[in-house]
Amino acid sequence: MTGDAESEAEVVARAALTRVLEPGDTHGGRLLRELGAVELMRWLTAPEPAARAPAGVGPERLAGYRRRAALADPRRDLETAAGAGVRFVCPGSAQWPTQLDDLGDARPVGLWLRGGPDLRTWALRSVAVVGARACTPYGAHMAQTLAAGLAERGWVVVSGAAYGIDGAAHRGALASGGATAAVLACGVDVAYPKGHAGLLGRIAGQGLILGELPPGSHPTPSRFVLRNRVIAALTRGTVVIEAAHRSGSLVTARRAQQLGRFTMGTPGPATSGLSAGVHELLRGEAVLVTDAAEVIELVGGMGELAPERRGPVLARDLLDPAASRVLDALPAGRPVPAEEVAVAAGAGTDEVIGRLYELHSLGFVERQGDGWQLTMRGSRGGPQNDATRRGGH
Amino acid sequence: MTGDAESEAEVVARAALTRVLEPGDTHGGRLLRELGAVELMRWLTAPEPAARAPAGVGPERLAGYRRRAALADPRRDLETAAGAGVRFVCPGSAQWPTQLDDLGDARPVGLWLRGGPDLRTWALRSVAVVGARACTPYGAHMAQTLAAGLAERGWVVVSGAAYGIDGAAHRGALASGGATAAVLACGVDVAYPKGHAGLLGRIAGQGLILGELPPGSHPTPSRFVLRNRVIAALTRGTVVIEAAHRSGSLVTARRAQQLGRFTMGTPGPATSGLSAGVHELLRGEAVLVTDAAEVIELVGGMGELAPERRGPVLARDLLDPAASRVLDALPAGRPVPAEEVAVAAGAGTDEVIGRLYELHSLGFVERQGDGWQLTMRGSRGGPQNDATRRGGH
Repeated sequence: MTGDAESEAEVVARAALTRVLEPGDTHGGRLLRELGAVELMRWLTAPEPAARAPAGVGPERLAGYRRRAALADPRRDLETAAGAGVRFVCPGSAQWPTQLDDLGDARPVGLWLRGGPDLRTWALRSVAVVGARACTPYGAHMAQTLAAGLAERGWVVVSGAAYGIDGAAHRGALASGGATAAVLACGVDVAYPKGHAGLLGRIAGQGLILGELPPGSHPTPSRFVLRNRVIAALTRGTVVIEAAHRSGSLVTARRAQQLGRFTMGTPGPATSGLSAGVHELLRGEAVLVTDAAEVIELVGGMGELAPERRGPVLARDLLDPAASRVLDALPAGRPVPAEEVAVAAGAGTDEVIGRLYELHSLGFVERQGDGWQLTMRGSRGGPQNDATRRGGH
Repeated sequence: MTGDAESEAEVVARAALTRVLEPGDTHGGRLLRELGAVELMRWLTAPEPAARAPAGVGPERLAGYRRRAALADPRRDLETAAGAGVRFVCPGSAQWPTQLDDLGDARPVGLWLRGGPDLRTWALRSVAVVGARACTPYGAHMAQTLAAGLAERGWVVVSGAAYGIDGAAHRGALASGGATAAVLACGVDVAYPKGHAGLLGRIAGQGLILGELPPGSHPTPSRFVLRNRVIAALTRGTVVIEAAHRSGSLVTARRAQQLGRFTMGTPGPATSGLSAGVHELLRGEAVLVTDAAEVIELVGGMGELAPERRGPVLARDLLDPAASRVLDALPAGRPVPAEEVAVAAGAGTDEVIGRLYELHSLGFVERQGDGWQLTMRGSRGGPQNDATRRGGH
């Protein structure tokens, strides 16, 4: 929310629409695209229904929209959210992950976010690790190891915070002092599943929790399925670790494929029903991966924003001041742990971890085992900036 | 060996050459192609070395050939072999599996064979199942199950008779009353490995044992590696079940791929070093398979000689008399076990099993669970024959 009145009206209207439109509602998405958020909400909350309904949206659907629009109180939602440390990010804002635009009319109306890091930057270097809820010890081990390996190489691990593979992936990333984001099928303030309340707290502290649904919303089966499209679209690729035939994780993987993202699977015994879905994927277009290096070989190849090869992404002096302070706190020539950077920057370790992953996405720093160090680009302060500025003219 | 003198001279010369040329010797293979077997042996056994050696074959190599040629006694080898129930089959003979011609100058000089079935026909519907010697119980289970499934669907399981995966594959096929062939890296009368003497006996009884090396020859490391090219070339495709990095089974798989055969792998836990080689293959061109149906879906698609779709392969009255008797013994309209066919045909069950797999390759019969039944083509005796004869004019 900025001081810009029109922009604020847009944010408020979109916050309201997260109460009106269910995730992935392409009918609503089309109306939103055609009318704009402010006009759509004005129309849905007008005392008399519009004389002529837009083509292709039935009267029952419209009546449902109007009923829910009448109950929406976006200003209160935004206030309550802000009080609980929850942000609301809209398409067009600097924090919006533009990858989600690939979803077309199924693009989320907006995202509710808990946690400090910049989602847009994080998403640039993220991989989804998903799989069965009722996983085997083998699956949990693979998810945890793979996630830890990804985090250690500076990649953000995205998952759905469910029991089983999802939880193991988040834990693996957290345990290695890494970055992880949970995409929920409910409000970001709702602890679901309940047994993961503690885990969700740790993710919110060290990483990000996000979702399309406004605070207080509860998950439904269709919300779970539609949440998966956000995981698929947000990340460079999706790794499935254990999934039975017709598992929800396969939906995520196939969606990732449709969206042109990398789809990967970790094999298991052919005798395990929990690997059958993964093997089905691997008999199609998905790539077999057994460790983090193989994942990064694939997703890093095309997608990596390697400034040395691709030219600068962002000039150093255009960085967010907090990120800039973290960059300044890194000594030249040797990797240091995040805790040491935090002391030097005068900030909390969790915040510094978030910033380091942002700086990694932008090519300024890289992770080396347990520590962080400046890249060529991160070290070359002045001249690089000048080059960038020249390039920008 | 026929009454044809020239042909017999060729057979004797080639039998001798199996003692002169090591498997896969492309230098020797080229000489053989250029000079012919009889002329090559005459030249190698001439009292004085030829005035001019063929280009590209060094004097040391030639001296080695001559030394071994002087010691060869092919007529005795052939006699001893015949006494022990071992045949010798040469390129150009009706029993020669022409797939092996794809090996070019590395084509075997000839094959020594133990067991009744017709190798050429069997090879038309065969799949190689290979893998690690020191396999896990999981790998052995998969090999046995896959081989049993292939045999139950009328496919011949080819392997190398080694401990581990190979043995499990042969046993799986035998146990389901199926067809299996072992390609050895030693003489077909040599029980190697020793612990598989009993298994080799059962394979010779119900199936086929074959190899390039003359009776009494012992295996060497290079003979094992070169044996793999015969397994790869003989079959429609190769399935690898458990193989560590740099395993010999990967050689077979890659050779199969080079030869345009299907290459398949059965996945296992990513934590198992014995699946690492298979996963490496699966990250390349190999196809992931978890059961026999998936294997047949692949190899049966292009390769199957389905007479209904492709026209007759062989007229019924051109069948070998023994095969013809087995075909006549099959009742119309219902599947019967091999044992019942054996009683009706007045032959041994092992021989009948061999013939049934031959008839299956030719499209006359098909396996249904534990029994065998006539196909459309197998049932239509007279008219089909006439059509075939007309087609042949």
